Amino acid sequence: MATKIQTPKGFRDFLPPIQSGRVFLLEKITAVLKRFGFEPLETPALEFAETLKGKYGEEEKLIFEFTDRGGREVALRFDQTVPLARVIAANPSLPMPFKRYQIQPCWRAENPQKGRFREFLQVDFDTVGSSSTLSDAEIIATAIACAKGVGFNDFLMRINDRDIFKGLSGESIRSIDKLKKIGEVGVVEQLKREGYNGKEAKAILTKIKNSSPTRALESLFKYLDALKVDKDKYAFDPTLARGLDYYTGIIYELEIEGYSGGSIGGGGRYDELIGRFTTKKTPATGFSFGFDRLIEAAEEAKLVPSYSPPTRVLITVFNERLLAESLSLVSKLRTLGIATEIALDPKEKLDKQLKYADNKKIPYVAILGPAEIKKGVVTLKDLASGEQSSLKESELVKKLKGAKF
Amino acid sequence: MATKIQTPKGFRDFLPPIQSGRVFLLEKITAVLKRFGFEPLETPALEFAETLKGKYGEEEKLIFEFTDRGGREVALRFDQTVPLARVIAANPSLPMPFKRYQIQPCWRAENPQKGRFREFLQVDFDTVGSSSTLSDAEIIATAIACAKGVGFNDFLMRINDRDIFKGLSGESIRSIDKLKKIGEVGVVEQLKREGYNGKEAKAILTKIKNSSPTRALESLFKYLDALKVDKDKYAFDPTLARGLDYYTGIIYELEIEGYSGGSIGGGGRYDELIGRFTTKKTPATGFSFGFDRLIEAAEEAKLVPSYSPPTRVLITVFNERLLAESLSLVSKLRTLGIATEIALDPKEKLDKQLKYADNKKIPYVAILGPAEIKKGVVTLKDLASGEQSSLKESELVKKLKGAKF
Repeated sequence: MATKIQTPKGFRDFLPPIQSGRVFLLEKITAVLKRFGFEPLETPALEFAETLKGKYGEEEKLIFEFTDRGGREVALRFDQTVPLARVIAANPSLPMPFKRYQIQPCWRAENPQKGRFREFLQVDFDTVGSSSTLSDAEIIATAIACAKGVGFNDFLMRINDRDIFKGLSGESIRSIDKLKKIGEVGVVEQLKREGYNGKEAKAILTKIKNSSPTRALESLFKYLDALKVDKDKYAFDPTLARGLDYYTGIIYELEIEGYSGGSIGGGGRYDELIGRFTTKKTPATGFSFGFDRLIEAAEEAKLVPSYSPPTRVLITVFNERLLAESLSLVSKLRTLGIATEIALDPKEKLDKQLKYADNKKIPYVAILGPAEIKKGVVTLKDLASGEQSSLKESELVKKLKGAKF
Repeated sequence: MATKIQTPKGFRDFLPPIQSGRVFLLEKITAVLKRFGFEPLETPALEFAETLKGKYGEEEKLIFEFTDRGGREVALRFDQTVPLARVIAANPSLPMPFKRYQIQPCWRAENPQKGRFREFLQVDFDTVGSSSTLSDAEIIATAIACAKGVGFNDFLMRINDRDIFKGLSGESIRSIDKLKKIGEVGVVEQLKREGYNGKEAKAILTKIKNSSPTRALESLFKYLDALKVDKDKYAFDPTLARGLDYYTGIIYELEIEGYSGGSIGGGGRYDELIGRFTTKKTPATGFSFGFDRLIEAAEEAKLVPSYSPPTRVLITVFNERLLAESLSLVSKLRTLGIATEIALDPKEKLDKQLKYADNKKIPYVAILGPAEIKKGVVTLKDLASGEQSSLKESELVKKLKGAKF
């Protein structure tokens, strides 16, 4: 009996053409993160449920939790910020400020819908242990450099300070966070549900919309300027709220112009979160890219190159007696760093071998038959152009190495 | 109240000095896998429990399974072979042979002990859709090239064919698999428990020890030779069994000389597994590195370089008035691709800034005070040698770029 072949809802397979695009973008981002001095960190998929609970506000209901065989309440990683806070508390001798990046899947029991999955990759970078606004500026500059590194041209980092909402409850802040989704009327309705009358609710919103940058924001903009961040890549937005409970200061959100899927990342200062794991007061600030949106926006902007497999050339097998000649060539090319495949079934006809290369989008095919061996050459076929040339081994190597990757 | 800061037993944090070593080795291995024509694949952390069950034999009891909120029986990925089989069945139009690599964590409810964890990384590569022994040879050649790529010199791929055990039950094969652990006497005892008498059990073992290579193995060795794989890196071992149920043909296991933690990886042909997900007969063969053992063996062999952070240089801040000068330098260096950090607290004393760089093992520190600015230079301090030099910006860039990474 065949077992069913589906993945659970909201969980995905990434086949090579997709996965290669993901790897491509992740390499671009990682290069930027290193240039800004962030170091790699990984944490486990499972945490004690207690570690995660009481940290995310109303989103907490989406924690993927269960009881393990040993009767322990455990949960799948919900984000990478709370695990980071735990790591900081567990490693008091870490040199501060600690700058780390972390690229791992997170899990949320969401109702799967377009662009929203139960397993998704987050790309985070945070600076822990500095209350200086310069560290917020550095995070924002890094995020902007990542967006540029990926190739985005038209984007905007909206920036605000939670201080703008001083006196408002977490619930009210979460209502304002929905402004883009539900509009001003919607926000006023939500605020009214929290006990304000209509006039008060409108007044709150008007006051926020007319707010001036706080002193922290003024410093921030000065630092961004000194760091030579383009002024048209960021802007003050007093209505930006960010839904998560743990933010305490400057907050930010990155939007790609023309991309309708919402912001591709966001972050902010969270000076109290780590203190929930340790008595040592530890300020922190950081950014998180939602990788699914980032890649979707990058695809729309044509920043992900069309797929080509690692293999540069397929060495065909003329017949079994000549197999050793082909294998010898395979070995030589690989030693020279050229990604090479051999047709795996020596009994297969040449046209089937060529079809395999074509299906897999391998750019070149090399043929080594009795005529070639006699002449000491290789016939190289360019599958895109159909061009065929008879090359000596050294010419072959030169051609395969020089070819655009 | 502080929340507890432990990870669940058998689950680990990888702090930057450790994680960097892991990334270093993974990059070496991935480069080899691409050179051999393997493409990247990822599958979800969670599968339906049904997908995993009945595939692993007695190890199945270690599957990390639970019921999700929707009442579905799900399980954490136990290995990457069964998910691969499911992917193949779910994507009938994939060009065959399909060569993929997959580097993701797996989870097993093991009793944690030295070198054995509940969450661990596997590095797999498999060829699906070819029954040719050449594809086994390619997998073995790839694994050996990976070991060399990491830097290992003394290692041995032990190779066998499950056909050697023809007529024996799965249980008997698993008994023989324990030969290294429990010795010949132990294996005979285990075989007796399966119903053989002492004489029969001994005869079975003697027969296996004296077996000659099968015809498939003879072809395999011929192919390995043609692929120029060093003859001292592999050997026929008729007692190699491999415990997993799904192997059907040639099997192999890689051992590092002098490393006591057991084989660092193994694999083999599994021609029946994919057929359990689809009616299409689909042969396959593949290898899996246990990354924890691989890295342990690599550390013992001094193949993992001592840790250095990505950051090449810390730009200090003389005082807040001169901060803009420092930030401008930071921006310039980063634009040139030099990984650069800025001292994040502009109010901090210079010696504290230097201490930060020292703690983090950042190799260089740049000082930009009033004297330097007046002269149009930067003072660069090499923290390892203590050497200090006064450099123009162009000299600074040259020095930082040329410095050994």
